[in-house]
Amino acid sequence: MKNIKNLGRNSWAEVLKRPTNTYEDIEQTVASIFKEIQIKGDVAVSKYGSLFDGVNLNSFEVTPEEIAEAIAQVPNELKEAISLAKSNIERFHEAQKTGKIEVETTKGVFCWKEKRAIQKIGLYIPGGSAPLFSTVLMLAVPAKIAGSSQITLCSPPNKSGKINPAIVYAASLCGVTKILKIGGIQAIAAMTFGTETVDKVYKIFGPGNQFVTVAKQFATKFGVAIDMPAGPSELLVFADDTANASFVASDLLSQAEHGSDSQVILVSTSEKMIDAVSKEIDTQIKLLPRYETAQKAIANSRLILVETDEIALDLINDYAPEHFIICAENENFFIDGIENAGSVFIGNYTPESAGDYASGTNHTLPTNGFAKNYEGVNLDSFLKSMTFQKITPKGIQNIGKAIEIMAEAEGLQAHKNAVTLRLKELQKRTK
Amino acid sequence: MKNIKNLGRNSWAEVLKRPTNTYEDIEQTVASIFKEIQIKGDVAVSKYGSLFDGVNLNSFEVTPEEIAEAIAQVPNELKEAISLAKSNIERFHEAQKTGKIEVETTKGVFCWKEKRAIQKIGLYIPGGSAPLFSTVLMLAVPAKIAGSSQITLCSPPNKSGKINPAIVYAASLCGVTKILKIGGIQAIAAMTFGTETVDKVYKIFGPGNQFVTVAKQFATKFGVAIDMPAGPSELLVFADDTANASFVASDLLSQAEHGSDSQVILVSTSEKMIDAVSKEIDTQIKLLPRYETAQKAIANSRLILVETDEIALDLINDYAPEHFIICAENENFFIDGIENAGSVFIGNYTPESAGDYASGTNHTLPTNGFAKNYEGVNLDSFLKSMTFQKITPKGIQNIGKAIEIMAEAEGLQAHKNAVTLRLKELQKRTK
Repeated sequence: MKNIKNLGRNSWAEVLKRPTNTYEDIEQTVASIFKEIQIKGDVAVSKYGSLFDGVNLNSFEVTPEEIAEAIAQVPNELKEAISLAKSNIERFHEAQKTGKIEVETTKGVFCWKEKRAIQKIGLYIPGGSAPLFSTVLMLAVPAKIAGSSQITLCSPPNKSGKINPAIVYAASLCGVTKILKIGGIQAIAAMTFGTETVDKVYKIFGPGNQFVTVAKQFATKFGVAIDMPAGPSELLVFADDTANASFVASDLLSQAEHGSDSQVILVSTSEKMIDAVSKEIDTQIKLLPRYETAQKAIANSRLILVETDEIALDLINDYAPEHFIICAENENFFIDGIENAGSVFIGNYTPESAGDYASGTNHTLPTNGFAKNYEGVNLDSFLKSMTFQKITPKGIQNIGKAIEIMAEAEGLQAHKNAVTLRLKELQKRTK
Repeated sequence: MKNIKNLGRNSWAEVLKRPTNTYEDIEQTVASIFKEIQIKGDVAVSKYGSLFDGVNLNSFEVTPEEIAEAIAQVPNELKEAISLAKSNIERFHEAQKTGKIEVETTKGVFCWKEKRAIQKIGLYIPGGSAPLFSTVLMLAVPAKIAGSSQITLCSPPNKSGKINPAIVYAASLCGVTKILKIGGIQAIAAMTFGTETVDKVYKIFGPGNQFVTVAKQFATKFGVAIDMPAGPSELLVFADDTANASFVASDLLSQAEHGSDSQVILVSTSEKMIDAVSKEIDTQIKLLPRYETAQKAIANSRLILVETDEIALDLINDYAPEHFIICAENENFFIDGIENAGSVFIGNYTPESAGDYASGTNHTLPTNGFAKNYEGVNLDSFLKSMTFQKITPKGIQNIGKAIEIMAEAEGLQAHKNAVTLRLKELQKRTK
């Protein structure tokens, strides 16, 4: 851990620099796999599955029998936990529905805005050591509420050709329409172009390693939208003397166990708190099964002492953390002032893991400073708004002249003419 | 014009294919200009301005004197027209403000969502034959309403080193904070990295030629968000026998004059209407100053006869037009059924040019079929939503067990521990 005191503003950028990767090399690989899958479809998907996941599959779709088997394998206790989480996620995302917005901007000019679902959604769920069935909930639940009609989920199979049962269970519970045993770059490419088995989708969501990240970015070249660019996960805690050092340490460690490139930052106005948290981390970290991963992330972490809440807030907005925990007496100052963060956790009894699983907020959030310009996944991520306008004869008479003048000034005569013809017709009628 | 009757469903894709460009070559140029501007800043911006815009500038910022001069140059009549348009755009975008959404998902678990402005916005406005001051209104007005604090506008200067006065006037009227005489790839690169003169921005909006389009897409690699991918403009009109052929023809031509690659489509259930529109186009096109451009676009256009409204709607949703005009007796059928369109214009007195300039809706819309997965620019394009959660001791007791079980099942012990510590502390207290 790096202990930093009263940092000058011009060192913020350097000290808060995130561990970054360059992806130049990967892009070549991604480009060639995309090309092959675009041309050869399932055959190429199968080839890369065999190469990267070490299992040769002829059919990728999880069958109804396999779904039944997975459902049977998930312990009841876990099913109940998932059910509670799902219900909270549903409640919070249902509440995000917005109605039609309608305005008569000028007498006779009616404009309105309505939202429609993005119909074909692709979800990517990584396999590997942590089977992220919670991410299935976070993506499929709002997709379903939005009204997307086709929800495709890809996840890499293990060596026996199976997807983790909890992932399959969550997918089937949340209304995913097709579950596919496809991982990595080949999954993103298959959803981008469509193959014999895989439907082409309009928008791809979900986390993944650096290969998946580059593949998603690459997919946008072919007109597919993505949820957001991804980077390693991160947490920033602001804690003053009212915080509980042991809780804060546990939160920092829960972020650190995600990966050795996770970033963990504590900002405090209290030197005592920093020392206490630091000691707690040393104690708690030893008990973790993912000790080595956490250790590496903690080595890169920062404990930053600042003089005032105001400086703290400026620094936090400059950093734009994915997760931001506020344990402070003056919590409203931070709630009102935070401009750039993915999700905010307030008070001593609001651990980040609550939002990761079950409070109801979404855990797919902007990392890497992207909280400055991107929002986390929410109901609107699965919708697009469309505008409508209907103008009465009186209405076009009210705004027609302005349109003619502006079109003329932009040198667009045909735009002007579309209005002129209508105004003339109305003039004729009133004569 | 291609006259097409009762097209089989499996020919839709082929017949509705858009004129597309490949950008492979351009990307090399873009990459090298980006690199140079990242390293050399203003010096490189100046070099490429001299190369591409044919004018060598030492300072790029439009001065207060130049703004005053531009304001004096804009005729009063145009100022009044702009004022009416601005007021309608303001009204429609103001109405799009959304309040805090708050839900107690489980007793003691409070989740809410609030929106915050994206603080640093970059606008690109093309120069050339059509000075798109209307686009300044469409982008700067909602940015201002959203609360963005820094709005940078780049537009290429002419050979005398000036930006079109109407663009400068609109920018100053709408609260743009810095107007810069920079065009093309170098403008996008400068706003991506920041230079001595140009502030780094978080999100770039605005139309442009193929170089600008590729540059914007390229900018996303460096963490800058963009409004949407761009393609040539397009219009689809559905007209039955209640339409006015002369009005329809004028709308199709107003789209056709944008560029020779614009796409213009008429879908109708009436052969009589198709013939009448076709004749009207032939008459009206001869009177247009941009005749040659329109002629080329019209040559690529399609007049499609279908048997029923239902088939028409399916075909339109499949095409996903940027602009969609409905002139039909059964207009509600199309309003309710349209899933994929940028903006919709309803009835005989609602020309597309109304939305381009003054009705109040935004004219920055998804082209190239992107209406399937992207929305047009609206107030939310300048905002990002953030989620908050605050959990009471009772609340964490209500959902803590579920979090522990799920974290354990995902193999994330530290996530579990953050909850366990808190539950234990509460247990101690109640004893």
